[in-house]
Amino acid sequence: MLMASRHSRNGDSDSSFPDLARFFAPRAVAMIGATEDLGKFGGRCMRQMMDFGYKGAIYPVNPRRDEIFGLRCFASVAALPAAPDHVGIVLPAHLVPAALEQCAERGVPFVTVFSSGFGEVGSAQGAADQQRLVDIARAGNIRLMGPNCNGMINFVDGFALTSTATIQGPRRAAGDIGVVSQSGGAGQVNIMWRAQQSGLGISYQVSCGNAADLDLVDYASFMLESEKTKVVLMLAESLADGGRLRMLARRAADLDKPIVMVKVGRSAAGSKAAASHTGAITGADDVCDAALRQMGIVRVSDCNELYETAMLLRQARRPRGHRAAAMSISGGNLVMVADLGASEGIEWPAYTGETTQKLAELLPGFGAATNPTDLTAAAIGQKNAYKDAAETILADPNVDILIPVLTINSANDVRAVAEVSARSDKPMAILWTGCASDDAALTREVLVAEGHAVYRDALPCLKAVQRTMQYAEFRRRLADAPAARPAGIDVEAARLLLEQADGPLSEHRSKALLQHYGLPVTMERLTSSAEAAWQAASHIDGPVALKIQSPDILHKTEAGAIRLGVSGELAVKGAYEEVISAARAYRPDARIEGVLVQEMIADAHEMLVGVSHDATFGPVLALGLGGIYVEVLKDVVFRLAPLTADEAQRALAELRTYKLLEGVRGKAPADMDALIDAIVRISWLTADLGDRIAELDINPLCVLPKGRGARVVDALIVPRRAAG
Amino acid sequence: MLMASRHSRNGDSDSSFPDLARFFAPRAVAMIGATEDLGKFGGRCMRQMMDFGYKGAIYPVNPRRDEIFGLRCFASVAALPAAPDHVGIVLPAHLVPAALEQCAERGVPFVTVFSSGFGEVGSAQGAADQQRLVDIARAGNIRLMGPNCNGMINFVDGFALTSTATIQGPRRAAGDIGVVSQSGGAGQVNIMWRAQQSGLGISYQVSCGNAADLDLVDYASFMLESEKTKVVLMLAESLADGGRLRMLARRAADLDKPIVMVKVGRSAAGSKAAASHTGAITGADDVCDAALRQMGIVRVSDCNELYETAMLLRQARRPRGHRAAAMSISGGNLVMVADLGASEGIEWPAYTGETTQKLAELLPGFGAATNPTDLTAAAIGQKNAYKDAAETILADPNVDILIPVLTINSANDVRAVAEVSARSDKPMAILWTGCASDDAALTREVLVAEGHAVYRDALPCLKAVQRTMQYAEFRRRLADAPAARPAGIDVEAARLLLEQADGPLSEHRSKALLQHYGLPVTMERLTSSAEAAWQAASHIDGPVALKIQSPDILHKTEAGAIRLGVSGELAVKGAYEEVISAARAYRPDARIEGVLVQEMIADAHEMLVGVSHDATFGPVLALGLGGIYVEVLKDVVFRLAPLTADEAQRALAELRTYKLLEGVRGKAPADMDALIDAIVRISWLTADLGDRIAELDINPLCVLPKGRGARVVDALIVPRRAAG
Repeated sequence: MLMASRHSRNGDSDSSFPDLARFFAPRAVAMIGATEDLGKFGGRCMRQMMDFGYKGAIYPVNPRRDEIFGLRCFASVAALPAAPDHVGIVLPAHLVPAALEQCAERGVPFVTVFSSGFGEVGSAQGAADQQRLVDIARAGNIRLMGPNCNGMINFVDGFALTSTATIQGPRRAAGDIGVVSQSGGAGQVNIMWRAQQSGLGISYQVSCGNAADLDLVDYASFMLESEKTKVVLMLAESLADGGRLRMLARRAADLDKPIVMVKVGRSAAGSKAAASHTGAITGADDVCDAALRQMGIVRVSDCNELYETAMLLRQARRPRGHRAAAMSISGGNLVMVADLGASEGIEWPAYTGETTQKLAELLPGFGAATNPTDLTAAAIGQKNAYKDAAETILADPNVDILIPVLTINSANDVRAVAEVSARSDKPMAILWTGCASDDAALTREVLVAEGHAVYRDALPCLKAVQRTMQYAEFRRRLADAPAARPAGIDVEAARLLLEQADGPLSEHRSKALLQHYGLPVTMERLTSSAEAAWQAASHIDGPVALKIQSPDILHKTEAGAIRLGVSGELAVKGAYEEVISAARAYRPDARIEGVLVQEMIADAHEMLVGVSHDATFGPVLALGLGGIYVEVLKDVVFRLAPLTADEAQRALAELRTYKLLEGVRGKAPADMDALIDAIVRISWLTADLGDRIAELDINPLCVLPKGRGARVVDALIVPRRAAG
Repeated sequence: MLMASRHSRNGDSDSSFPDLARFFAPRAVAMIGATEDLGKFGGRCMRQMMDFGYKGAIYPVNPRRDEIFGLRCFASVAALPAAPDHVGIVLPAHLVPAALEQCAERGVPFVTVFSSGFGEVGSAQGAADQQRLVDIARAGNIRLMGPNCNGMINFVDGFALTSTATIQGPRRAAGDIGVVSQSGGAGQVNIMWRAQQSGLGISYQVSCGNAADLDLVDYASFMLESEKTKVVLMLAESLADGGRLRMLARRAADLDKPIVMVKVGRSAAGSKAAASHTGAITGADDVCDAALRQMGIVRVSDCNELYETAMLLRQARRPRGHRAAAMSISGGNLVMVADLGASEGIEWPAYTGETTQKLAELLPGFGAATNPTDLTAAAIGQKNAYKDAAETILADPNVDILIPVLTINSANDVRAVAEVSARSDKPMAILWTGCASDDAALTREVLVAEGHAVYRDALPCLKAVQRTMQYAEFRRRLADAPAARPAGIDVEAARLLLEQADGPLSEHRSKALLQHYGLPVTMERLTSSAEAAWQAASHIDGPVALKIQSPDILHKTEAGAIRLGVSGELAVKGAYEEVISAARAYRPDARIEGVLVQEMIADAHEMLVGVSHDATFGPVLALGLGGIYVEVLKDVVFRLAPLTADEAQRALAELRTYKLLEGVRGKAPADMDALIDAIVRISWLTADLGDRIAELDINPLCVLPKGRGARVVDALIVPRRAAG
């Protein structure tokens, strides 16, 4: 068994995931705290395991019983005839450590601790108690699920170790969807059971609780690698390690098995509830949103959206673009679908002449052969209307996906649509708002179980379509050239400057570092006398800026230690003295490196480019237009590094204020090539050295009109103390 | 019967709605085009009417039959024993006019034309054919439903005139929800049938098709006035007359019967599909959104949201604020609910000390007595845990609504929650993601039929809660003082200026008009010589602006006929000549009124205040910060006039750029009182004379720092030719 250290640091995560084959399909299982009392967790767990049809050996452990549900009961793990692959512990919290130690002594590789009363309590004691479990597990080579969890279900091999009522009754057939969550109720009911109700089959399900050792990513990795799983659904209350998630996502992309995720903690209220529930830290949501998108993880809002998106994503055929067609006998539904779809970013292309003509022949005298296609009531009872129309539209090269809308239709019509879908090499999302008028047994569930994607309401349907289009686009981009390191980067020189610093780097030093990454900076010279300042100024065309340089004065404007637009010997020399005096007055003990004499940049678009450290994802790049656009309008986009030029361009285009860069109200368009080159270089700096940077702020990066480049006008880098 | 002219103009809509009592509950009905063939529309309509249990006389009309389904069949309307109250026509389009004329001759008050092939075809011929039906109806005192419609259903009195399969089988009990749409499929299946499936009862349903005569508003009005209806659901593909909708909404507010609406046409694609479906005009969606909100109409996106919102809105108890509480044994669900709720604008207040203490006593040792409240697994099987916790939380004065979250629970727990809800005077929205573990018959449908609001997924639940909170807030505002006309308004003087104009008003004249509404304008004088310009300038402190005044030159900057910041005699006189020359060069035949010499306003916040004419809602006020904020960021809010000061304040606060008015980066905060006063005055101008204004543009309205007022710096009014 691989013993991956999951407490890896951001950015240098361990590249291995544990082998959980025996965790999910143990040859023998023990349950410590087993009982026959169904009013108790241990009783329900035992009953479910037995009823679920598990074929391996089951060892109930309870010193006060000889037999449980007809099985021989053992006094301790030590007394078992053989070491089980997986042990469940359902004991009061204070008895768990001793039981875990027994498992370690016996050589048990996997233990699930159901008991609560650990990290989720929110107290220091709870955290310490949880850490003790982890320590015992580490020392004993045990991988641990929980504590405070509701276990797992393996529909593929027929094994369940959980108390949930969702698996009562005959065991449902295994399907191709994996489900991972921390929560039991939401994961097993809202996602797993509801997905099954809708006709989807589940391969594996895990509710991992506090995730003290094994976490969401570990279980998801197992499911992805299993040939039984095509899509993994995750409900994440917290994400501990962005680096490992990124590795998981890369593997998912390689396998073409999408991950769909609800990540809670969007709002402060949610984060607070999440913290009290799992004691976990949630990162800033905008960063999370951008990071997941970049990884190709499909983020949705609610549990039903998880499995509704999976209905389309589990199909091997994917839309080649964002162009959809819809058809129905209900014109009102088509209007709704067209409208809501466009709001979601779905395009409704015109059909080719050939399609238009063919449809007109199929629907003589009624409806317009436009997209969406109104078959009108004329199609009711016309035997092949649905089939012929669907096939004609699917054959149109302008159409990437077809959305047939059914209301209350004959079983014949419903079947016709499903049969076209089964044969089509283009995807179809069937919106079915009603029922079959002449066959009560023909339901959505039946069609979904056959592999179709069927939706009851327009918005969930269109959201699933749009998300599938986005995922397909992400897949297409994987074929693009990966981010390539631009020429003229000296990583070691930059690293040295960071390592030598014993605090924040002044503007001057920050720019020196940025220059090692090939970033253009303003023409400037660090001076230490009024005379030197004037000499420096006389080598610069136009007026200059004078700025104090001190690692102890990070906010020069606040200190009043900056002068702008100064020209002429007297003025420059005077400004030098003023800047020095202001700095001394502001902070008498400041270490002063000198005064920077710098060219003034006119007619530029001001950008802010920053790097900040996210608790989950590590160093994150932030982009926005400077000034009020970032500060008041909060118009910022985030990206994980490194970026290709295309990705940098797309990131910029997400800004609401993007249009300003194109030049409005007489302002010249910004030099986008120079801006994008600068962003790509900063993204490499972030990728290479982000772990050693607590904060990087280029504000502003002045972007001149087209062809004239960009300049770092001011910059601040705060090194991060070496991590471990 | 009232004969309301529905082709009223915006703003001066007819104040009466027709009496549709006999339309919905006729004493006798005839069906022209009746048949026994269920493959035909006329056959299905006949069958449905008879099976639905209609107690009045049914007269099939078909010259080729003697009897239909055992009823005596008549050759024509003329041959009927008595004039029916309502006649349905199912004939090929070209035969409809003659049939309608027969109805007129016979004195039939209401006719439903099911036949298609009229306005929805999109051709001039189709429009003309439809107009002919309207003309015949008008001349014959007939009120018309359709054409191209699927009729109506009256569950209250047991009458259906429609072909829909949704009412097959035993007649469902009447409920308290009215449903109005143009579409048959979406209205009858997506809304009515699905609402019934979820446990809601319907009072009346209408699918009115092209709405050539009677329209959505007429049917909705009938339903609102009926004591059988508590909420009206509308799916509107187009809204012809905003004025009548406003009257309907006012009446709904008086009756405290909410209207919930899906209005399609959000996107260009939707509008296009809408246009091809009904031949109707859709207005700009942002305007529609603002107008509906202002009217208290609850706008939702999809059909399921209509009835899901109605589940809460039909209850008489309403939340007193935006503060919700949630409770569950599923911590994961609580995290989701808290997070999604906060994203929707729902607050999660802390409980009072009393509540906290009581909950702690109820749940000893487990969970934190915080909001949301995690009952934890400890509550499972504890008989009164749900009841006691729910009652305790509902008693908390900080809580306006309770959201209990159930997953898979015992019937006892589900019932306990429902019973608390039945007795509570605060609303409860029950989120039930699973089922009852021990009673398959206890379903959501059962609880909804009993009057509870029960949701399957978190997001629809929270959206319904948030919308109910919004509606309750709208209701509370009705108690506020209505918009009061500010002092110093001379409507007649302003009207005269508009009437005298034979084209666009120059800046100077536009400002004169605005001054009649008490708006402050820049200090300025119209001059017609360089000498006069200099004299005017010398009476103004600081530099001045010189601007050409001509009804033929609306864009002075484009013409180059404007000079800013001019001071000194020579400069002012020179600027005068330059402005005149530029105007002559730009447009040699321009009628020139003179050159406006105007004070320059510094340090101001620039606002744009405009009035435009919306096809549906008539004159609409638009507000935004000037320059790029409106032009590039499209940050504009819309309102119908008139506005109270509070409403003006709320409108401004909706701007993304609102914070800029508070003063950022050293800029002084804007004089909000002056800005709001100006907006209120313009809103009265809009209310009084908006019908005579095609376009009004105050750009900029300069708002000075606090205490220094605001000034109209530039303005343009384009009169609208008198309507009718």
